[in-house]
Amino acid sequence: MEAALCNLKDPLIDHTEGQCFLDEAIKIIVEEVLCKGTDVKQKVCEWKEPNELALLLDLELRESGEQQERLLQRVRDVAKYSIKTSHPRFFNQQFAGVDYHSLAGRFLTEALNTNLFTYEVAPVFVLMEMEVLRSLRQLVGWTEGDGIFCPGGSTSNMYAMNLARYRLHPEVKSQGLWALPRLAIFTSPESHYSVKKGAAFLGFGTDNVILVKVDERGHMIPEDLDEKIELLKSQGVIPCFVSCTAGTTVRGAFDPLDRIADVCDKHKLWLHVDAAWGGSVLFSKQHRHLMKGVERANSVAWNPHKMLVAGLQCSALLLKDTTNLLKRCHSSSASYLFQQDKFYDVNLDVGDKSVQCSRKVDCLKLWLMWKAVGSSGLEERVDKAFILVRYLVAQMKKRDGFHLVCEPEFVNVCFWFIPPSLRGKEGNADYQNKLAKVAPTIKERMMKQGTLMVGYQPLGDMVNFFRVTVFSPLVSFKDMDFFLDEIERLGSDL
Amino acid sequence: MEAALCNLKDPLIDHTEGQCFLDEAIKIIVEEVLCKGTDVKQKVCEWKEPNELALLLDLELRESGEQQERLLQRVRDVAKYSIKTSHPRFFNQQFAGVDYHSLAGRFLTEALNTNLFTYEVAPVFVLMEMEVLRSLRQLVGWTEGDGIFCPGGSTSNMYAMNLARYRLHPEVKSQGLWALPRLAIFTSPESHYSVKKGAAFLGFGTDNVILVKVDERGHMIPEDLDEKIELLKSQGVIPCFVSCTAGTTVRGAFDPLDRIADVCDKHKLWLHVDAAWGGSVLFSKQHRHLMKGVERANSVAWNPHKMLVAGLQCSALLLKDTTNLLKRCHSSSASYLFQQDKFYDVNLDVGDKSVQCSRKVDCLKLWLMWKAVGSSGLEERVDKAFILVRYLVAQMKKRDGFHLVCEPEFVNVCFWFIPPSLRGKEGNADYQNKLAKVAPTIKERMMKQGTLMVGYQPLGDMVNFFRVTVFSPLVSFKDMDFFLDEIERLGSDL
Repeated sequence: MEAALCNLKDPLIDHTEGQCFLDEAIKIIVEEVLCKGTDVKQKVCEWKEPNELALLLDLELRESGEQQERLLQRVRDVAKYSIKTSHPRFFNQQFAGVDYHSLAGRFLTEALNTNLFTYEVAPVFVLMEMEVLRSLRQLVGWTEGDGIFCPGGSTSNMYAMNLARYRLHPEVKSQGLWALPRLAIFTSPESHYSVKKGAAFLGFGTDNVILVKVDERGHMIPEDLDEKIELLKSQGVIPCFVSCTAGTTVRGAFDPLDRIADVCDKHKLWLHVDAAWGGSVLFSKQHRHLMKGVERANSVAWNPHKMLVAGLQCSALLLKDTTNLLKRCHSSSASYLFQQDKFYDVNLDVGDKSVQCSRKVDCLKLWLMWKAVGSSGLEERVDKAFILVRYLVAQMKKRDGFHLVCEPEFVNVCFWFIPPSLRGKEGNADYQNKLAKVAPTIKERMMKQGTLMVGYQPLGDMVNFFRVTVFSPLVSFKDMDFFLDEIERLGSDL
Repeated sequence: MEAALCNLKDPLIDHTEGQCFLDEAIKIIVEEVLCKGTDVKQKVCEWKEPNELALLLDLELRESGEQQERLLQRVRDVAKYSIKTSHPRFFNQQFAGVDYHSLAGRFLTEALNTNLFTYEVAPVFVLMEMEVLRSLRQLVGWTEGDGIFCPGGSTSNMYAMNLARYRLHPEVKSQGLWALPRLAIFTSPESHYSVKKGAAFLGFGTDNVILVKVDERGHMIPEDLDEKIELLKSQGVIPCFVSCTAGTTVRGAFDPLDRIADVCDKHKLWLHVDAAWGGSVLFSKQHRHLMKGVERANSVAWNPHKMLVAGLQCSALLLKDTTNLLKRCHSSSASYLFQQDKFYDVNLDVGDKSVQCSRKVDCLKLWLMWKAVGSSGLEERVDKAFILVRYLVAQMKKRDGFHLVCEPEFVNVCFWFIPPSLRGKEGNADYQNKLAKVAPTIKERMMKQGTLMVGYQPLGDMVNFFRVTVFSPLVSFKDMDFFLDEIERLGSDL
C-alpha cells in the first residue's frame, strides 16, 4: 500500500511508455502475422505437442511484472505458435484470409473500447449498426425490419428461437415454459449443431428438435417437413420454429427456401434461415438465386466474418418484424442504464434488444470494409470463390485418387482422397475402414509439417472425408494446384 | 464477372497497399483515441444530435468503393465523434481507462483472427485460457475446477443457471423444462438485470425469479432468503439457484456470501456469485474480505474488463465442479469439429463446453497485462481505487450540496447533488420531484459541453442520483477534485 500511495498523485499508467510498447508490438504483429503469416514460403502452423508448447510459452502468472523486452518476446512467441488463419494454405475453417480495412476497423474498435447499449456511450456505433443492418436487410429483400449483431451465429439462431416462441406465447417471458404446451423445432440433420445446443439452452430440449429428411445432396425435403409437422400436431405438440440452412457447414447445401416457406405459411410457423455461412451469396447477382425465397423468412442469421472476411466476430441477426418484437421479448428496462428521462430519443438505446449487457461493437469492421470495396467489391469476392471452386473441382476430376462426395453447390468441396493402395479396391470388406483412416493420417502429417490445414469429418454413413472451403480473397489458382499436389504428396504412401 | 476473371491469377488483396492503409489508420488511432482521447484538455465526448451525426458520418453503404484518403478521413471521424472511454473524465460506466499491454494483446488477437474451439486452430489460446482460468480460480480459493470465457457477464450468469438446473435434472437437456417441476431462482432486487433476462431466455420465466429482501445498504438478507426458499418449497416449487452479487451495479454492495452459503448448504442449492464488477477485489489482500466465503460458491462470474481494464470483452465464468459438468451440459459433439480420431488429446478441444460455436479469444489481453504488471500491479490498481474513492467521499463531505445515498462499500459512490435552490428545502412537498430532475439536467449539460460523463438512476423509492465509479488507472486526486468542481459548476444555477 505504501507503493500505491506514492503513485496517487499520478496515474498508474505512463502514456509515453505505453505507446512505445504498443508501437513495438504492432511492428511484431505486422511482421509475424501479416507478412510472414500470409507468405506461402512460411508455415501455416508450427505444430508443438501441448506439453512442449506450454513449456515454451511459460504461461504461469506471477506476483511480479516483467520487463518490456521480455513482454515483446511473448508477443512474438504467441504469434509464432499460433495458427496463421490468413495464410493462403489455411482451409480448415470458414474464417480465413485478412482484409486490411476490416482489420483497421477492428483496431479502432478495440482502442475506442465501448459497449453497444446506449447512444450516450456509443453514438457513432448505434447509428452505424442500424445502417449496416438496414443494408444487409436490403440484400435479403426487406425494406423495413429489425436486427442486431450477436456474438456468433449460434447466438443469432438462439435469438430467433426465443423470438418465435415469444411471438406465439408471450407469457413465456414471465411464466416460463411450464405455462406452454410442448413446442417443437424443425431442422435438417445437416444443419448446424447450434440448433440443438440452442434448444437445450433455451429449455426446449433436444428431443423436441425434429430432424427433417434431406435428399442425397443434403437439402431439407419440404414434403417430409410437412408430414412431420402434421405428425407432431396429431401428438398434441405445437410446431413453433423451422430452421433452414443456407449453406450447410459440411456440404454447403442450400435448403429450398421457397418451398419450405410454403409449408411454413400453411402451418403459420416462424421460418428462420441460418445463412451464417451462405448468406454472402446475396451480394452476387449470379449466385443469389441459391437463396430464392429468403425474403419470405421471419429471420435470417448471417455471419460476415465467414465468407466476407470481416473478422471474428461479425454475426448479424436480421428480422422482418416491425413490431419491436426483439425489444419486447428481451427487454428488462434496467433503470440504471435505460433511463426514460434522458435528453435524447431513448429509442436509440438499443441495448435492451439484447440478452447481453456488455455487447461488443461488431459493425465498424464490416462498415469500413464495405465502404472500402463497395458492394461490388464484395460481390467480386463471392464470384471469385465460385470460380476457384469450379477450377479446383475440374482439376480434381483430372487426377486419380480424388473422389467427390457430391458435386459442390457452394464453395465447400467434399472429397475422399483414395491413396494408391486403395484404388480399385472398393469391393473389399475393409475398404471403408481403411478409407476412414486416410484423412486423419494426412491431417496429422500436414499439421506436423505445417504445409496446409484442411478439415475432415464423417457424415451420416459416409466415412471421413475432407472438406475444403475456398473463399479467402488471398487465394488464387496456384493455391488450388498446391492444395491438390500437397494432398497427393502427403497421402502417396498410404 | 469479367473484372473478377482478370484478377483470378492474383489475390484480390494487395498486402503492401493494405499494410500501408493499416499503418496510416494506426497513426490516427494513436493520435485521436490514445493521445487526444486521454488528454484532460480535450473533450470526453463531442455531442451531436443523432440526425446531425448521421449526416456527418455519411453512413450509407454503396455499390462502389472509396479512395484510401476518404477512408482515412472516416477513421478520423469515427474516432472524433465516439466517446473517449479512456479519458480521465469518463465515469459513466464500469469500463474506463486503457492499459497498453492489454491493448497490444487485443490487436494481436484481432490480427490472429482465430476461434477458441479446438487445439488445432488455437493451440496457444487453449492452453492460455486454461492457465488464466486456473489463476483466477486460485484467487477464488479453488485448487481445481473448470471455467470458460463468455461474451459478457450476462452470458456467464446464464451459463451458471443452466448448469444448476442440469445438475439437478440432467434430463432437461433432452426433454426440456416440460419434464421438470417448476424451478425457482433467488436473487436480490439490486442484482444485475441479467438474472431476469437470463431466466426469461432460458425458459424459467421472470416470475420464477424470487427477489430476496436487502438491507438499507443493499445487501441480500440471508434470513429472508431462507424464508423464501421454505415458502416456495411449501408451494411445490423446487428451489434451484441462488445468485448473489459481489459488487452490485449501482451501489457496489457485496452480499454476505458466507451466510448465504450456509442457507444454500442447508437447502443443497447451487450458489452463484455474480462478481462481474466486484471480483477484482480478490487481488487485494486488504479488500478481499468483502468476498469472504466465495470459495463456498459453485460458480463465480468475474469480468476483468471492468475494474482491471482488460478491455471489452473479458468475462470469465469460474466453476468449482470437477466432473466435467460444463461439457456434459453444453456438448453436442459435432462430428465436423470435435472429431474423436484426432492425433492429439481431444480434451483440448474445449469448444464443446460453450453454447457458442465461434468464440472470440478473450484471454490474451488479460494474460499479457497480468504478465506485464504482475498480480501485485493489479492489486495496486484495486487498492488505489479504494483510496481515491475515500478521498472523493471525504471531499464531498466538506462541500455543500453533495449528499451520499449511502457510505460506499466499494468504488461506487452514489450521491445526490442538491443545487443551491433546493438546499434546506427537504420538507417541501415538491422536493423529491425537483431533485429527480437535477441529475438529468446536469447530465445533459456535461454531455453537451463534453467535460465529464457520469451516470445517474433512481433506485427503489430513491429519486435520480449520480453513481460515479472510480477505478481507471489513469485517474488521480486532481480528477476527483475536478469531478466535484464540475458537478457544482454545472448545477449551480439549478
